[in-house]
Amino acid sequence: MRPDCHIPARGARWSVIVHGGFMAAARRADETAVAESRAALLESVRRAGAILDRGGDGCDAVEAALIILEDCPQFDAGRGSALTATGGVELDAAIMRGADLGAGAVAGVTRVRNPIRAARAVLEHTPHVLLQGAGADAFAMARGLEQAGPDWFVIPRMQAELAAARQRTGAAEMGTVGCVVRDARGEITAGTSTGGTTNKLPGRVGDSPLVGAGTWADSRWCGVSCTGEGEFFVRVAAARTVCACMELAHLSLAGAMNDVIHGRIPALGGRGGAIAVDNTGNISAVANVPGMVFAGCTSNGVVINAFDAPERSTEDAGIR
Amino acid sequence: MRPDCHIPARGARWSVIVHGGFMAAARRADETAVAESRAALLESVRRAGAILDRGGDGCDAVEAALIILEDCPQFDAGRGSALTATGGVELDAAIMRGADLGAGAVAGVTRVRNPIRAARAVLEHTPHVLLQGAGADAFAMARGLEQAGPDWFVIPRMQAELAAARQRTGAAEMGTVGCVVRDARGEITAGTSTGGTTNKLPGRVGDSPLVGAGTWADSRWCGVSCTGEGEFFVRVAAARTVCACMELAHLSLAGAMNDVIHGRIPALGGRGGAIAVDNTGNISAVANVPGMVFAGCTSNGVVINAFDAPERSTEDAGIR
Repeated sequence: MRPDCHIPARGARWSVIVHGGFMAAARRADETAVAESRAALLESVRRAGAILDRGGDGCDAVEAALIILEDCPQFDAGRGSALTATGGVELDAAIMRGADLGAGAVAGVTRVRNPIRAARAVLEHTPHVLLQGAGADAFAMARGLEQAGPDWFVIPRMQAELAAARQRTGAAEMGTVGCVVRDARGEITAGTSTGGTTNKLPGRVGDSPLVGAGTWADSRWCGVSCTGEGEFFVRVAAARTVCACMELAHLSLAGAMNDVIHGRIPALGGRGGAIAVDNTGNISAVANVPGMVFAGCTSNGVVINAFDAPERSTEDAGIR
Repeated sequence: MRPDCHIPARGARWSVIVHGGFMAAARRADETAVAESRAALLESVRRAGAILDRGGDGCDAVEAALIILEDCPQFDAGRGSALTATGGVELDAAIMRGADLGAGAVAGVTRVRNPIRAARAVLEHTPHVLLQGAGADAFAMARGLEQAGPDWFVIPRMQAELAAARQRTGAAEMGTVGCVVRDARGEITAGTSTGGTTNKLPGRVGDSPLVGAGTWADSRWCGVSCTGEGEFFVRVAAARTVCACMELAHLSLAGAMNDVIHGRIPALGGRGGAIAVDNTGNISAVANVPGMVFAGCTSNGVVINAFDAPERSTEDAGIR
């Protein structure tokens, strides 16, 4: 198993980390898949980092980072999402603004190209936190967000995965994408976007769009984005519990992440991981199974890249 | 403001509390509304208590209690639910089993008479936690749950409330229903059911069906069901945070409820309340605005009834 990764902030002005969920061993052996995934993760970090480096807002950085990953067919979010039992896509996304605990989310959207944009629109243009289903699609359309259909979202690889899942052969991947940043003002923002699990029951909502489960941000403590077997993350309120362990039990970010990802989740039989940034800019990426892919950096130029060895690289991300 | 209510267990074998959300002052002045609401709350407690007194399962008790309240048109859940901006109902419900952190929930269902039954079916008959929208309705129908339509759900009072809300005159009620029990085995179960808020955007999901927000149960600590302005309860992960305050900050149930309902929620500008039972059977009902209606009892015969004065009565609930 690839070891967990904890990068100290060392006074960084800003920090960013993104994840692309888990890549199964077979896909990690596929050079093209790895190269495309790696490029998208690094581009995602670069985009977010460029926004943060010029003093930009954390919500802008998280949205920009997640659009890159939603549009990349290598990840289970936006284009390339997992297919439901009936062969369609139902997409979930959430964003949480740690400055004021503001949050916006959508569940089960089928027609908006970038669900993270819809989530942000819920945050900024409604009194609500979560919209689901047809109402969420109608809202996104009314806001003028770019639409897309099956020809964009559905790719052959996920059709093959659905066929395999129907025969209970292939092990479905867990490919949610997420991003957590601490911006130059010290505010933390977290976002998550997913197509959910292959062969899911229509209507199934996992942890990603649920504030406190797959996504959480409180600038006083930390921001968290999770990936894995979503139901387990809901049942332990994973992202909120990481923060609660810092706030109420005075654990470090690494300690809090270990408590949830290596303790509470596997205690129920669940698999997965999470990325997080704390209120001083420290970064953590923790998983209890192999294959979580992620990348990140801080204003100090530290780059984390799960595809590289060694994990902790001082390679410059090329942001400045 | 009616004071908060904390009832010590004093060794009770079992405990139950139910709430019917908030009744605005105008409706609390309506004798028929009060009589019907009071009767339904007491009947709800009696049904749950009878199940618990014969050693029955907490999930059975919570489901039975909430069916009574869903079917009563005085509460914003099931029949009598708040209407969306387009004049329909979209119902949410959740149940959480504290024995193993198992949970089931539905959001935005429109055709199942008792959403709490659908939530329990998700818990017991799927690998999922939350189903939304059309998929959730289809699942409930496939499970053979009783169907209902607008002629059952929609009542004149809520049509009038919608008309007023469209003109921004009436103050919408917050009428969610909920139930928390500790059964004779010591296991805690919590459930919540709601029609949401009047004039809500179609697709809007509040805190009720979200595990950790409006509903939470962990038999090691407590179970919680919330009611009020749902978005604020989502943004503080209210129900899970009550439990975290007990688990991680070692507060009492009363202290944890005060921290969330009188601290975190109003700090964001939110109004509402919650009911809870802890792992020894202590009961709390706490609200930061007037009008939350609730009833409860323990195997010791203590009855709480928010409509009566004094609040803490030794009237026997007539269960045994």
